[in-house]
Amino acid sequence: MNDERVQAALTGLQAQLCAAFEGEENGRRFARDSWERDGQQGALSGHGVTALLEGGEVFERAGVALSIVGGTQMPPAATARNPQLAGRPFRAMGVSVVTHPRNPGVPTSHLNVRFFGAGDVWWFGGGFDLTPYLPFEEDVVLWHQAAAAACRPFSPELYAHARAHCDEYFYLKHRAEARGIGGIFYDDLHDHSAPIALPWQQCLELMQSVATHYRDAYVRIVQRRRETPYGERERSYQLYRRGRYVEFNLVFDRGTLFGLQSGGRTDAILMSMPPEVRWSYRSPDPELDGRLLPWLTTLRGRDWLTHA
Amino acid sequence: MNDERVQAALTGLQAQLCAAFEGEENGRRFARDSWERDGQQGALSGHGVTALLEGGEVFERAGVALSIVGGTQMPPAATARNPQLAGRPFRAMGVSVVTHPRNPGVPTSHLNVRFFGAGDVWWFGGGFDLTPYLPFEEDVVLWHQAAAAACRPFSPELYAHARAHCDEYFYLKHRAEARGIGGIFYDDLHDHSAPIALPWQQCLELMQSVATHYRDAYVRIVQRRRETPYGERERSYQLYRRGRYVEFNLVFDRGTLFGLQSGGRTDAILMSMPPEVRWSYRSPDPELDGRLLPWLTTLRGRDWLTHA
Repeated sequence: MNDERVQAALTGLQAQLCAAFEGEENGRRFARDSWERDGQQGALSGHGVTALLEGGEVFERAGVALSIVGGTQMPPAATARNPQLAGRPFRAMGVSVVTHPRNPGVPTSHLNVRFFGAGDVWWFGGGFDLTPYLPFEEDVVLWHQAAAAACRPFSPELYAHARAHCDEYFYLKHRAEARGIGGIFYDDLHDHSAPIALPWQQCLELMQSVATHYRDAYVRIVQRRRETPYGERERSYQLYRRGRYVEFNLVFDRGTLFGLQSGGRTDAILMSMPPEVRWSYRSPDPELDGRLLPWLTTLRGRDWLTHA
Repeated sequence: MNDERVQAALTGLQAQLCAAFEGEENGRRFARDSWERDGQQGALSGHGVTALLEGGEVFERAGVALSIVGGTQMPPAATARNPQLAGRPFRAMGVSVVTHPRNPGVPTSHLNVRFFGAGDVWWFGGGFDLTPYLPFEEDVVLWHQAAAAACRPFSPELYAHARAHCDEYFYLKHRAEARGIGGIFYDDLHDHSAPIALPWQQCLELMQSVATHYRDAYVRIVQRRRETPYGERERSYQLYRRGRYVEFNLVFDRGTLFGLQSGGRTDAILMSMPPEVRWSYRSPDPELDGRLLPWLTTLRGRDWLTHA
């Protein structure tokens, strides 16, 4: 019964997010691919809608995926931390968003909100992060203030906690680089989690707050940067930096690896991949690296909330 | 002492392979990046030469990397299977090759030969595989006959064994697709390994045989296919299929993951990445997929040695 309320909220969020991105395009719409799967051969059963906009004026690729999977018996791998869940029916659902804009002045963005329920055991997770190619400090201020505002009604400590977790999670250890300017990331949030616990109803409202604050902040940044002048130089650099996004998602991202290993719908899992990417042995533009990378390092730990 | 003989052989192979690829270019040469590293903070010490040709007429990117790493004490992770090695000095060395040709008619190729030595414990590994974008059956015949010829002087069973291992290793489980037409792949080969064992000297000669047969077969295929007529359609398909190469190397390849996790030289480890790649939600060309993918499936298990 509670699961249905989360599902309804996620369905609404997917529609709102697609509408917000379509509002920035000149008529280009999301294509919606509905899917359903019965859980044969150990795969989870489920259904969902993968909404994708490719080849837009603003968004070279934007994906907004809703998925609801579940089963009558928890798989053993999922119950290692919670052996009391073994054999129980469960449901896992979420909305994932990745945008790859065309203009190198517009950052790549990512949102995920998710819910897991198995009877009286449940938790929520979510967050958003931003990956710019060119440094604009006022976007960092806007982004982190939105992140803090999304969390503030629910817990005074949540933003700081989720911001630190985000910085840690989206760090590319093999490159010794942050993926971007961070944001928030929380997991396993429930009514007796530590250090922060929230009642079920507040977790649901937080999920909606996170998604709508992401939407409004990101659309504002898109509007600010969509006319950024650029040439082949910035475009090349963007394609090269997108390689880092691929490396992170394929080497480190838990959701991507779990999806690929558990035999999910690969094209949908990999909608996070950029539409076009380049690799080169050395950075093609040390000067643009010199503007971006040290700047990303200086952002960590700075206080964005008391910023003018 | 024996380690030095392997190192000398690998150094020679790197030079031969670079010369062979340069012979197909119109003056473009490999850039050689020599590196040396002392093993601080748990990293392995080592040295090597990363040879890379980027932006060639035939090769959009070709990398031929020699690396020799080692230490005075085996790291614990490396001794799980062989606890008697804990704390011993060791050396690991190899040559890795990946080529990404420009013309979609020319397949991507991969070679790796490697040696591990820790006193009286040692093993060799190696192999090569080929990833075409357009199907040419006579290239499959040439490739597998070269693979068999590389192995034949050393063991009557090695080719069949290494071919099966290659098919298994280079299978993209998340896509239910073979990476290409296969070849050979062997690992942990030493003088009492099962089912195939070879004395040290023969292992060394096999290593050289594998590399030179790869070189000659691949150069022949390059010469056959380098003038293949193509247009934007075949180019787009090639860029899309290159995404599979990225997915395999970042999600499944043990060497890549070990390198990234152990803090190696990331740009050198990722020289296997294609210079330019595209992803899309659905295949951009189901007709070209229809020519390539069922064909790849029919190749598995076919006998290429009695082929006319």
